[in-house]
Amino acid sequence: MTPTITAFERSPDRGKGLARDMRIRWALEEVRQPYDVRLLSFKAMKEPAHLALNPFGQIPTYEEGDLALFESGAIVFHIAERHTGLLPDDANARARAVAWMFAALNTVEPPIFDRSLAKILERDEPWYEQRLRFLEDSIRKRLGALSARLGDAEWLDGGFSAGDLLMVSVLLRLKASSEILDEYPNLSVYVARGEARPAYKRAFDAQLAVFTAASKG
Amino acid sequence: MTPTITAFERSPDRGKGLARDMRIRWALEEVRQPYDVRLLSFKAMKEPAHLALNPFGQIPTYEEGDLALFESGAIVFHIAERHTGLLPDDANARARAVAWMFAALNTVEPPIFDRSLAKILERDEPWYEQRLRFLEDSIRKRLGALSARLGDAEWLDGGFSAGDLLMVSVLLRLKASSEILDEYPNLSVYVARGEARPAYKRAFDAQLAVFTAASKG
Repeated sequence: MTPTITAFERSPDRGKGLARDMRIRWALEEVRQPYDVRLLSFKAMKEPAHLALNPFGQIPTYEEGDLALFESGAIVFHIAERHTGLLPDDANARARAVAWMFAALNTVEPPIFDRSLAKILERDEPWYEQRLRFLEDSIRKRLGALSARLGDAEWLDGGFSAGDLLMVSVLLRLKASSEILDEYPNLSVYVARGEARPAYKRAFDAQLAVFTAASKG
Repeated sequence: MTPTITAFERSPDRGKGLARDMRIRWALEEVRQPYDVRLLSFKAMKEPAHLALNPFGQIPTYEEGDLALFESGAIVFHIAERHTGLLPDDANARARAVAWMFAALNTVEPPIFDRSLAKILERDEPWYEQRLRFLEDSIRKRLGALSARLGDAEWLDGGFSAGDLLMVSVLLRLKASSEILDEYPNLSVYVARGEARPAYKRAFDAQLAVFTAASKG
């Protein structure tokens, strides 16, 4: 059964891979699972039909037969559980990969996302520069710890996993809007390693094509 | 094998259930799994022995034989997977419970945690009042959506699950420091329903006992 995901009709980043449907597309491409996409306007995201799928009115969602899911972390985990290639077979290694999924979303992403939000919403406030420095200090604490743990390894814990998929996705938002990532050369190489994966490229091209098509329409 | 978790030697909330080891204690109590606790000073949390367990230098961690985990979401999930009672048997219901786990930690917790942090770190900043209002608006958006979805149900999706355990834990931080939760009567009742569970009470008492013992020491 072909799953259907939802994505922005007009992505705020103009299709450059930062919207959260990218994570789902990437996971589906890694496991070679074809999928359909239903595009939503910002208005449609807040209407009852979509709120039934995601009570918080966000994208992405995932529908597959009787199953409807929201939260990009949960959707990536569902895909990883049902297919081979995104979680190790060994039970302990699998639990550690899940830990990296949560670490990406609950420890590393929040200050990075807050910084992006502040750059939009607080740019004209008198405290903007000071607030930005505060957030960047938080980001550097997380990145310093992550960089020390990664060392010169290819991926966070053995082979590429759903934990790497989410961590690279989170770091890509930082790369798109700041020089901070460059301060951690091993993390820059780690992110580039993720972007070089054929599945990432296919997902990126598919997401960009939505914006390109909309611009021509 | 008895697992060992780590917790604050002196919790900033004086043992009132807000430190993240509470989530692990609660999950372990729900499944009736005894556990050991190793207490850590703030200094010890940043030392190599602990950084080997959690690269971000935080509590809680979880050790069980050869397995070492960090991230409270991942640890609760590990406990839920290995025991009966925290995740439904039906595969689709289980995937939805996992979605609520991620929703608690990645969608509902960030503005609540940021508000707590701002109240400590930004109280003397020129932007404090405006920032607090901004965060409280974000919190209300999330809570309004959650309240609408919960309606008059007991739990978020069928029986009590690890998703409820994390959602109640996240909302408890808000309850401890604000009146906002009172604006959503069904969420207040939902949180009280969680606190009334015998497993929650046992976990709370155990966490409080650490602080009480330390105060006497």
